[in-house]
Amino acid sequence: MENAETGPVLRVPAREIPIPVGLSPQAQAQLAHPGPANPEWPPLDDVDAWRAVVARMDEGGLAGLRMMADQVEADVEEIDVDGVRVHVITPRDVVDDAVYLEVHGGALLWGGGQSCAAMGRIMAGLVRAKVWAVDYRMPPDHPYPAGVDDCLTAYRALLREHPPERIIVGGASAGGNLAPAMVLRARDEGLPLPAAVVLMTPELDLTESGDTFSTLLGVDTALTSRLMPANLLYAGGHDLTDPYVSPLFGDFTKGFPPTFLQSGTRDLFLSNTVRMHRALRSAGIAADLHVFEAATHVMFMFAPEAEDRTRELRAFVDGRWGRGNDGPGSAADR
Amino acid sequence: MENAETGPVLRVPAREIPIPVGLSPQAQAQLAHPGPANPEWPPLDDVDAWRAVVARMDEGGLAGLRMMADQVEADVEEIDVDGVRVHVITPRDVVDDAVYLEVHGGALLWGGGQSCAAMGRIMAGLVRAKVWAVDYRMPPDHPYPAGVDDCLTAYRALLREHPPERIIVGGASAGGNLAPAMVLRARDEGLPLPAAVVLMTPELDLTESGDTFSTLLGVDTALTSRLMPANLLYAGGHDLTDPYVSPLFGDFTKGFPPTFLQSGTRDLFLSNTVRMHRALRSAGIAADLHVFEAATHVMFMFAPEAEDRTRELRAFVDGRWGRGNDGPGSAADR
Repeated sequence: MENAETGPVLRVPAREIPIPVGLSPQAQAQLAHPGPANPEWPPLDDVDAWRAVVARMDEGGLAGLRMMADQVEADVEEIDVDGVRVHVITPRDVVDDAVYLEVHGGALLWGGGQSCAAMGRIMAGLVRAKVWAVDYRMPPDHPYPAGVDDCLTAYRALLREHPPERIIVGGASAGGNLAPAMVLRARDEGLPLPAAVVLMTPELDLTESGDTFSTLLGVDTALTSRLMPANLLYAGGHDLTDPYVSPLFGDFTKGFPPTFLQSGTRDLFLSNTVRMHRALRSAGIAADLHVFEAATHVMFMFAPEAEDRTRELRAFVDGRWGRGNDGPGSAADR
Repeated sequence: MENAETGPVLRVPAREIPIPVGLSPQAQAQLAHPGPANPEWPPLDDVDAWRAVVARMDEGGLAGLRMMADQVEADVEEIDVDGVRVHVITPRDVVDDAVYLEVHGGALLWGGGQSCAAMGRIMAGLVRAKVWAVDYRMPPDHPYPAGVDDCLTAYRALLREHPPERIIVGGASAGGNLAPAMVLRARDEGLPLPAAVVLMTPELDLTESGDTFSTLLGVDTALTSRLMPANLLYAGGHDLTDPYVSPLFGDFTKGFPPTFLQSGTRDLFLSNTVRMHRALRSAGIAADLHVFEAATHVMFMFAPEAEDRTRELRAFVDGRWGRGNDGPGSAADR
């Protein structure tokens, strides 16, 4: 069938999608009670309305983040790194000098401050290492490239204290945009690459050209709309296909660290994730893909599926950090 | 929302899904002109109608298969292996004693005979090795366990001529059911495991419990309906959750070979594929997942995406066969 504006389209009728029985009861319960929908997006020039969206999203998410963060025994310190605020989270049982540079999520708009510190603390528990959580500047006051600049400032500072092979850089959602954007910038500016990159349901393509932006719209109950207004506010007039804005379009043949990628079959960013996996491997970069059954943009919490994800993530970072926990490894190894 | 029969459901409105612009022009053209829909399924006891379905599907697919198969320079021989017909395909440029046991697709009903030989020849070109294509018995005359029995007979015969580390077992679609079912049977009967298993858009779960059986129904233009009538005909009254009938439910902690898995974001069997990947890795089995953007149950042909898949598959089998082509490897390796 044809649509005059978009060319050929596939017409899919309305459907009732049940909760798959192959999930754990905990994950099934989570799918039955999805969280709140995405906010309404204000007009691009209504700065006050954007500020209100950011405040409301931060307020709505903080209690849940804190509950999870409080389960991680850690020392937390806020430092100034060449003008960039960084939350340094050191788990009480940290055993080595490995460090994880965490770039928080939040649609490139929210998730700063206390939310950033809480997400960093959760990540410190997952990877069992010291975390530097970058509290990068965001729109509406600070569009691109402020966020990438701040992440790069933090990475440069880390490199003064740690050899690059002790540093892993990662992020979820919007953090899965800024983290690889910063790594591409670092590479292009001649800095050494970190030991690895972790991308969880990553917002790699601000043009939203992936298939699942269409096929899973309405199926993902965590990310309930496209994010184009937020993307345009963030880009501030810059080309959305610039690799520092949409790292999916980077040239990985020039080098990129080994990369861990995670998504779900209901994740609006599934296409982002699998396209990045293909782009990396086509360029000869080692990259491992993990897709979780029926997981939306937000991974199941307090469910066996989450434990499986944690086990996989730990095997990856422990392997890269030489901690002697390599997991099942790749099937291609002989 | 609730549905009295199935519990909570997600209501997704009707949609127009465009062809994603991130694909190659060749792949976009293929999505714009999908093939014929699945056949209407006859009543289970109408044997003649099932035979007619099988004949029509074989006839419809053979010309395309032959066109691709003819591109592979190979010697083809039909042999009888302890009562099982096997097509032995030896590429002219084959360089070593590696052998690939190919289990053909076709909804567990069709794809035998000339189609089986053609699929085996295509596979020989992909993996650049001698292929044994098992022409296993099928319904309506030969339901489960005939197909698994025949694959096991062929594997036993191969083991008399080849050490297990020279044998890779694989299949697409229905072949991705029988191949791992046979490997589970072989393991349980004390036979040595092959070097690896290759599963392409595999029909691992005849109960069809995966999420994408719902979320991608109507989105996958190659596999346009569920296959339950065919599954029931094949199972012939056996429990669909038996691991030899639905290998997804196997106990992989007892051992399974390193496994390559491939699917697409529009593949009705995406859940089958990612659930198997998780099940294997949770059991400590090395397994690599590759998901292709917008690919349906049938992979793009004559497109760069297909070349990418071939390169990935070759890196995998060459690595397992010790041919010195290991590809980018796993990101977890240090």
